[in-house]
Amino acid sequence: MVYLDNGATTAPYPEVVETMKEVLQTYYGNPSSLHHLGVQSEKVLKQSRELTAKFLEVSPGEIVFTSGATESNNTAIKGIAFQYQNRGKHIITSAVEHPAVLDVCKQLQDIFGVRLTVLPVDSKGMVRLDDLKQAITDETILVSIMFVNNEVGSIQPIQEIGNYLKSFPKIFFHVDAVQAFGKIPVKPETLGIDLLSLSAHKFHGPKGTGILYVRKGTQLTPLLVGGGQEAKFRPGTENLAGIVGMVKAMRLTQQKLKDQPDALKRMRNRLVEGLQGLEGCYINSPEEGAPHILNLSVPGVKSEVLLHSLEDKGIYVSTKSACSSKLDRPSRVLMEMGLGEERARSALRISLSYENTIDEMDYFITTMKQVVPQLKQMLNVR
Amino acid sequence: MVYLDNGATTAPYPEVVETMKEVLQTYYGNPSSLHHLGVQSEKVLKQSRELTAKFLEVSPGEIVFTSGATESNNTAIKGIAFQYQNRGKHIITSAVEHPAVLDVCKQLQDIFGVRLTVLPVDSKGMVRLDDLKQAITDETILVSIMFVNNEVGSIQPIQEIGNYLKSFPKIFFHVDAVQAFGKIPVKPETLGIDLLSLSAHKFHGPKGTGILYVRKGTQLTPLLVGGGQEAKFRPGTENLAGIVGMVKAMRLTQQKLKDQPDALKRMRNRLVEGLQGLEGCYINSPEEGAPHILNLSVPGVKSEVLLHSLEDKGIYVSTKSACSSKLDRPSRVLMEMGLGEERARSALRISLSYENTIDEMDYFITTMKQVVPQLKQMLNVR
Repeated sequence: MVYLDNGATTAPYPEVVETMKEVLQTYYGNPSSLHHLGVQSEKVLKQSRELTAKFLEVSPGEIVFTSGATESNNTAIKGIAFQYQNRGKHIITSAVEHPAVLDVCKQLQDIFGVRLTVLPVDSKGMVRLDDLKQAITDETILVSIMFVNNEVGSIQPIQEIGNYLKSFPKIFFHVDAVQAFGKIPVKPETLGIDLLSLSAHKFHGPKGTGILYVRKGTQLTPLLVGGGQEAKFRPGTENLAGIVGMVKAMRLTQQKLKDQPDALKRMRNRLVEGLQGLEGCYINSPEEGAPHILNLSVPGVKSEVLLHSLEDKGIYVSTKSACSSKLDRPSRVLMEMGLGEERARSALRISLSYENTIDEMDYFITTMKQVVPQLKQMLNVR
Repeated sequence: MVYLDNGATTAPYPEVVETMKEVLQTYYGNPSSLHHLGVQSEKVLKQSRELTAKFLEVSPGEIVFTSGATESNNTAIKGIAFQYQNRGKHIITSAVEHPAVLDVCKQLQDIFGVRLTVLPVDSKGMVRLDDLKQAITDETILVSIMFVNNEVGSIQPIQEIGNYLKSFPKIFFHVDAVQAFGKIPVKPETLGIDLLSLSAHKFHGPKGTGILYVRKGTQLTPLLVGGGQEAKFRPGTENLAGIVGMVKAMRLTQQKLKDQPDALKRMRNRLVEGLQGLEGCYINSPEEGAPHILNLSVPGVKSEVLLHSLEDKGIYVSTKSACSSKLDRPSRVLMEMGLGEERARSALRISLSYENTIDEMDYFITTMKQVVPQLKQMLNVR
C-alpha cells in the first residue's frame, strides 16, 4: 500500500499507540480528583501542556487542549464573536478556508447577525494583503486565515497579515494551522497570531484531540461550559491518553522536520518532475506551496475515476478535503483560484508525510503514466 | 488499592484498551475518505452506531458521537435554545445539575437573554413534579433534568416528567444520564426523553468520548460547525478508536448489569449497615437512590481531611463531584437538600463499579471505624 492521503489523516506512530495504551492503563485517574491517582494524572497533564508550549514556543498557560481542530476553530471564532460583540460585529475570512472555519463564520452571519467578509484568492490560492487592508472596518473584531490550504497547499502570507494587524490591537487574528504543523515552522507568537488551531491526527497523533493556542490576555466566551477545566476555555474531563499521544506525535514530528527538513520537498519535487512528461496532467498547486501537498488535474477524467484506478494499484489519494469528498461538487478551492470547472472536477490531492519514500513517488509516477492514458482512451478524452 | 471513586472516572476495561489499540493501528483511515481505508473505517463507525442504538433501544440515526458529556450537554441545551428561540426563550432545569448543565443554562441566561427557572429539590435531592408543572409557561422550550445525581445518587422522576411532558409537544426534554447508564435501565424512548447525554469514561470506556441521543425529528442549531460529520450535529473527524472503545465498554457494562443486577446494591447495602455503628457518621444519600453512589458526612471532620486519611489506607474516594472538588466550597447539592453547611463541608462520596467487591466494602467500613474516631479525637470533635 502506498498511502498518499496524509492530508486527510495519518496513521498514528507506533510509539503514540504504545504511549496511549500506557496512559489508559496507568493514568486513568481524573485529573480533578484530590487523591493520588488524580494528582498523578494532573501531573502528566501539566507536563503535556509544558511540552506543547515548548514545541510552539509559547507559554503553558496559552495552551488549551480540545477534541480536535473543528472544536478549536469553533471555540476561537465563536468565542471572539460573542465575547467582543459590543466592540463590533465584523469578521474577515478567506474563500478557501476549511468548512470548520468558513461555515462557522457563515453560521455567525446567518444566526447571530455577524457581518462577514470573505476574501478572494489569486490563481495561486493566496489571499492578497491589499484585499485584507481594504476589508477592515472599525467594526472588525476577527480575521481568520488558514496557514496552509488543505487542498492545494498554498501558504498564506501569515507573517505579513500578523505584522499588519499589529496596528489594530482590537482585531484578533486566528489561524487554522492544521496542515502546517510539522511541515513548516509554526510559531504563533513571532507571527503575530492570537489564536491558532491544530489537530493531532494530521501529524500521526490520535483522532479526537487538538490544540487551541490562546494568546495571553485574549478572552473567549466559552463554547463549552461545565466543570471549569482548561482554564474554563474547554471544560470536560480531559482525554489524557489522547493528549499524551498527541504530544508524543508532536515531538516525533518536530524531530523529523529538524532531521530531514527537505524530505517532503524532495518527494514533492520528484512528483512534479516525473509528471511533467504526462500529457494532459496539470499541477494546480503553487510551486512555492507547502512541501507535503500536491494537487493535480487530468481534465476529462473525473477525480473519483482516477482515484479508484490508482486504488486498484494500491495507491491511496483523495479528491479534495476528506470532509467534503462525498459531495458531488467541483472543488471549491480550485474554483476560487479561477482554474475552471473542468480542472476542479478532475482534481486529485496527493498529500505526503515523513513516512513516505522516494520509491513510492516513483511508483506513483509510473502508475499515473500507465493509468491515465488507459482511462483517457476508455473515456474518449483527447 | 481500593478505588471507590468510580463516579469521577473509571479504569478502562482491559478489553477496551486492546480494542482501541487495534483500531488505532488498523482502522486509521478517515471515514470520509473515498478509498478502501476510509470505507473500512466508515463501516466500523456504522457498526458502532448500530450497537449503541441497540443498547439504548433507539435507532442508529438518533445516535450522535461526541467528545464527552460536557459536549453532549452543551450541544443539546444550546442547540435547542438557538434552534427554537422564536418559539420561546424559557428553560427549566434543577438546582442539583452538574455544572455542564446548570452553567450552560446560566450562560444562556447571562449572554443570550434566555429566561431560566431552576427547580429546587427536596431533602432526598429529588425534583418535585408539581414544581415543574408550575414552572412551565407558553415560552418554555426545554426541560433539562439529570437522571442520577452525581453526588448523592438520587434518581430523579424521569419517567413521570417524560410522561407529563408528552402533553407539551413543543417542549423538549433533555436528560444528563451520565451517572445512570449501566447502573439502572436507560431507555430514552420509553421514558419520553428527546435528548440524552452519556460519557464513556464513567462506565470503563475511554475519556474524550460520549454520546448524545437525539430523538428523530428534533432539530438542533449545531454547536460545532464544519465538515458535516454526524449528520451535521457534530462535525470533525471521528475519534474512531474512542468510539469503538466506548461501544465495547457499553456492551461489557450492560452484560454486568444483566448478569449481576444486584451486585452494586448489595455492596451499597453492606456499607450502609456497616456504617450504622459509627457514631457521628450520617448517610446523605436517599435509601432508594442509585445503587453505586453513597454520600456520607462526619460533621466536624472536613471532607478533605477524611479523604486523605482514607487515602493513607489505600482507599480512594471523593469529596463531591470531581470537577468542583478543588473549589473550597460546601457541596452545592447537599446545601440544596437542606442538610446544612456542616454536613455539606464534611461530605464524602463513595462511588462503586462492578469491579468492586464486598471485601472492599468491609475494608472500607473497618478503616472508617478506625480513622474517624482518631480524627475526631485529634480535631477535638465530640
